[in-house]
Amino acid sequence: MSKLQVTVDVVLLTIRDRELHILLIRRLAKPFENRHALPGGFVRDDESLDRAAIRELREETGVDKVYLEQLYTFGDPRRDPRGRVITVAYYALVPHSQSLGAGTNASEAAWFPVSELPPLAFDHRKIVDYAQQRIRNKLDYTNVGFGLLPEKFTLSELQAVHEAVLGETLDKRNFRRKIILKGIVKATKEWQQTGRKPAQLYRFTQ
Amino acid sequence: MSKLQVTVDVVLLTIRDRELHILLIRRLAKPFENRHALPGGFVRDDESLDRAAIRELREETGVDKVYLEQLYTFGDPRRDPRGRVITVAYYALVPHSQSLGAGTNASEAAWFPVSELPPLAFDHRKIVDYAQQRIRNKLDYTNVGFGLLPEKFTLSELQAVHEAVLGETLDKRNFRRKIILKGIVKATKEWQQTGRKPAQLYRFTQ
Repeated sequence: MSKLQVTVDVVLLTIRDRELHILLIRRLAKPFENRHALPGGFVRDDESLDRAAIRELREETGVDKVYLEQLYTFGDPRRDPRGRVITVAYYALVPHSQSLGAGTNASEAAWFPVSELPPLAFDHRKIVDYAQQRIRNKLDYTNVGFGLLPEKFTLSELQAVHEAVLGETLDKRNFRRKIILKGIVKATKEWQQTGRKPAQLYRFTQ
Repeated sequence: MSKLQVTVDVVLLTIRDRELHILLIRRLAKPFENRHALPGGFVRDDESLDRAAIRELREETGVDKVYLEQLYTFGDPRRDPRGRVITVAYYALVPHSQSLGAGTNASEAAWFPVSELPPLAFDHRKIVDYAQQRIRNKLDYTNVGFGLLPEKFTLSELQAVHEAVLGETLDKRNFRRKIILKGIVKATKEWQQTGRKPAQLYRFTQ
């Protein structure tokens, strides 16, 4: 009988202090004891992959009611010292207000800026890099900021999301031209009166 | 010990007679004996998922040297009557010239138009639908026709690829406006002299 096992791992991303952050737990068990890792664990016999990801995220971090998307399946034969473990990775970009509950299986769930990640267990660094690449690619053709922004937002607010995901400062004029040309957002007839001069409000087209 | 097993399945797509086709084999073993299915099989202990997909495709259809991309992992607990079998699906869109060799594990590998698929084994119909959706989505923001078209091609040739993938006829003028606006193709200074009037040649920007 095969010794092969399947896990799920979750890359939960948020924007905090204008920088992309990732939720990590600290492993209590071997292998990689005390090392930081993505929330995740073994898929149970009777549950789908999606349900396993949602359950592990809730058990280990207290985060609930998140719409997870499947990212990629990592199956290098040597990625886990325990034997052949294939992991199905999930990801989501959530508002920072998402509260962290008390984890039961793992401790110390906390947000880390992607620019200063501690050493991670297994191939989790590779999984994080893959998730970051995916949301970067999605910036150009989807409403990736949806869920992070209010229904109506200024282009400055949208630019801050793009800058956080890309990890770099963007030219304001180029950003505006490109984002409107792509047809991802549409101007409303409303203006925001906060800053020094009023800013037009936009919404996502999809 | 877990009875869980992992397979790979491959959705190989091509365009033939202006219509999207999929490569299917006929199953020789139970379950779903004699039913058509995607080429695929169990992942071996010492091979990566990518290598398993390439190997199964070659063994079952003779198709070699194809760049496969991972599509999605299907893990419904009841998708396989043999027990818990999670499958990692791969896909590729290849030129029709791709020859089919003699299969060793399965017989009768053949291309089927997606509009007239026979009943498929397991949840393979769902996997095919997912692959079709993926390449439809990719039409809008990638050079999905790359590999299917020569290095330089006319917009009519590109439109034929889009029409085959979408399964519908497109308005010529709208198609041209949209494809140029998206920045996916770029005009060359060369013209093709075939048809009644010369047609400008384009190339992909990426």
